[in-house]
Amino acid sequence: MMKAEIISIGDELLIGQTINTNAAWMGEQLSLAGLSVGRVLTVADTKEEIIHALDSCAARTDIILMTGGLGPTKDDITKYTLCTYFNSKLVMHKNILNEIKAYFASLGQKMPDINHNQAMLPDNCTVLRNNMGTASGMWFEHNGKVFVSMPGVPYEMKHLMEERVIPKIKKKFQPGKIIHRTVQTQGIGESRIAEKVTGWENSLASDGIRLAYLPAPGQVRIRLSADAMPEKDMETIIHQRIEELKTFIPRHVFGMGNDVLEEVVGKLLLRQKKTIAVAESCTGGYLSSLFTRISGSSAYYHGGVVSYANHIKTALLKVPAETIRKKGPVSKEVVEAMALGVKACMHTDYGIATSGIAGPDGGTAEKPAGTIWLAIAGPTGIWSNVFSFGNARDRNIRKAAITLLNYLRITLEEAEQIKYNTVAGPK
Amino acid sequence: MMKAEIISIGDELLIGQTINTNAAWMGEQLSLAGLSVGRVLTVADTKEEIIHALDSCAARTDIILMTGGLGPTKDDITKYTLCTYFNSKLVMHKNILNEIKAYFASLGQKMPDINHNQAMLPDNCTVLRNNMGTASGMWFEHNGKVFVSMPGVPYEMKHLMEERVIPKIKKKFQPGKIIHRTVQTQGIGESRIAEKVTGWENSLASDGIRLAYLPAPGQVRIRLSADAMPEKDMETIIHQRIEELKTFIPRHVFGMGNDVLEEVVGKLLLRQKKTIAVAESCTGGYLSSLFTRISGSSAYYHGGVVSYANHIKTALLKVPAETIRKKGPVSKEVVEAMALGVKACMHTDYGIATSGIAGPDGGTAEKPAGTIWLAIAGPTGIWSNVFSFGNARDRNIRKAAITLLNYLRITLEEAEQIKYNTVAGPK
Repeated sequence: MMKAEIISIGDELLIGQTINTNAAWMGEQLSLAGLSVGRVLTVADTKEEIIHALDSCAARTDIILMTGGLGPTKDDITKYTLCTYFNSKLVMHKNILNEIKAYFASLGQKMPDINHNQAMLPDNCTVLRNNMGTASGMWFEHNGKVFVSMPGVPYEMKHLMEERVIPKIKKKFQPGKIIHRTVQTQGIGESRIAEKVTGWENSLASDGIRLAYLPAPGQVRIRLSADAMPEKDMETIIHQRIEELKTFIPRHVFGMGNDVLEEVVGKLLLRQKKTIAVAESCTGGYLSSLFTRISGSSAYYHGGVVSYANHIKTALLKVPAETIRKKGPVSKEVVEAMALGVKACMHTDYGIATSGIAGPDGGTAEKPAGTIWLAIAGPTGIWSNVFSFGNARDRNIRKAAITLLNYLRITLEEAEQIKYNTVAGPK
Repeated sequence: MMKAEIISIGDELLIGQTINTNAAWMGEQLSLAGLSVGRVLTVADTKEEIIHALDSCAARTDIILMTGGLGPTKDDITKYTLCTYFNSKLVMHKNILNEIKAYFASLGQKMPDINHNQAMLPDNCTVLRNNMGTASGMWFEHNGKVFVSMPGVPYEMKHLMEERVIPKIKKKFQPGKIIHRTVQTQGIGESRIAEKVTGWENSLASDGIRLAYLPAPGQVRIRLSADAMPEKDMETIIHQRIEELKTFIPRHVFGMGNDVLEEVVGKLLLRQKKTIAVAESCTGGYLSSLFTRISGSSAYYHGGVVSYANHIKTALLKVPAETIRKKGPVSKEVVEAMALGVKACMHTDYGIATSGIAGPDGGTAEKPAGTIWLAIAGPTGIWSNVFSFGNARDRNIRKAAITLLNYLRITLEEAEQIKYNTVAGPK
């Protein structure tokens, strides 16, 4: 397989102030595009180090991708170093200057003088226009090798990789086609999945399919990969294999590819013309923020209450103070009352709620940190359950939110199934 | 300054399945110990790649730290590669075998046969005992250079670094000390900062101080670094320089080091014994989630309302329907009514609110996407302002939230200052 190497430029990466997430993301994207990454070199912001890395990579590979050091300030030296390396002259790109000015104008600002130099670009590169910021990408070709320089700001780099760099690499090098399909699961760990699918997993090799588990808190992505083979319809074979996989873990598979649970749930609500409201204690606004980060969510998400203090559970959500006193805020009775309360006060079809101990402090012997109650109040009834997630605050909040979203997805899919069966007549 | 280089071994790092957090952590620790990291090389699990990396690093530096590839399974080849490289023979270490057996016994398990080979270690290295797992570290000395191999499991690597590797490096190389200080700013871009501090920035070199700008959406970290010099008190000089920096951008500096705004604000509220409630429209729960991700935030954060639908602004926050109809939900009048409303209904000292168009859809010519009103209602009055952030939904939400947190910080600091001045008598 064709290899690329990555040069990550920046002292902040070497002293550990910034974790190199860019290289991981780029590795994943290149692998999806049918290329492998030979090495990642993380180097300092000095001319000598950058040139040393360029020489080292150019001796090994034909595609060299760099990130970092393209800002307008004095510590950003990548562009000047590339000019030395490729014997370039900097020339003013008027169209780029106008775009940088327009970028600042869109923020209601005048372009600072210092950004003027970002429109000065090497005369012997293809400029890769950056719509997300002021630092253009640069594509050099030299002795049959490609050298690409991109800014280190992750969303700017991602934009350039997706829109400019990967399409150009595909066109120039025509890497062999590789097929990847990713199954999204929630609520089951990778070891447990592996146990359930052992026989299926062992049989994949005979079809030329490779398997990878990609775990994240509360979620595991399962990726199936194969090289495209002209004599076989790999797309169909992988599709069949995924249908088999689903039968082992039917309630855990919520989507494919880059699907996220909040969007899957949003689409179900939209299709069923249902609305939702959220009452949160331990998740503290995070669950609402998942709903609302989807553009267009106002069509089904009406609002939420973060009832951190008990008096707010009573005042806004009408949870009886008596219930809180007797059962405690982290209880089946309170979380169900919260779900029903927010549904009633916001006049929605669904109300969902969380109440638990996010940790690391606040636990007791009976209810340790990570004890979290979740509830769904819907048109036909109420569901609730308790979970034990562990001790880490961030992960508890995340796990509680996506666990509740997954149960909501199952509830909505079952509602759709019942409706469909009813319309279609009894089985 | 004495330099180390890091070799991170593992295919999972190259295909982006695992983010290289180890290298960042090691970089930070080495930097605290007075060493700088020259490069990080991330390479595949093959003998050729590992040897290539060892040669490359040994040609540049005297300290080479490796992680990864020390497990008991077939794909773990680092130990065998090092035997080739250093011409070692593997010998059985009985004491290590007993410790591996004891490790499994402590988990109530018998040692699997496969782990037997982890007690076979090179005859020409110093074995670094790993109390957290079964893979020992290895310390080789060769031509005056040190090569250290550690497992890739983060907590095992950290244990070996802290307990074995850094103490041995300090003893052998007696590195000089390096000082880093980071200033956290909000609400001003790096170009704008650079413009304001040009003279100051140019004068840093004469003190031997290096400067770096580390931007993130809505935030810029400014890092000052210097080698400790026996003849100069660098700590004091950097401290003075930072005090000078603050005078150029006084309202934007909110903290130092790894401070985050939600924690800085939380500490101010705690110290002033004030409470807060949050009303959110466009930020959709994200602002509340920032407050509540801080453990102990329930002492000052009482709760929040996400009033996505207008009827919730009216029902829960008592924003007059008339005002919403006349002025529109994205207006000074509505955001101020939201802040006052949430403060009243949650009985807190402060109420803060956001109302805007997160985008990318929903904008108009008059109020384009990214138009966001922010308000703070406090014990002595109300503040509000409108901002234009741009078109990207995620970033608008993030920027609106941290911009409001920064204004809240300024409000709280001014309240403290006034109180202090009052206590201290008139100026």
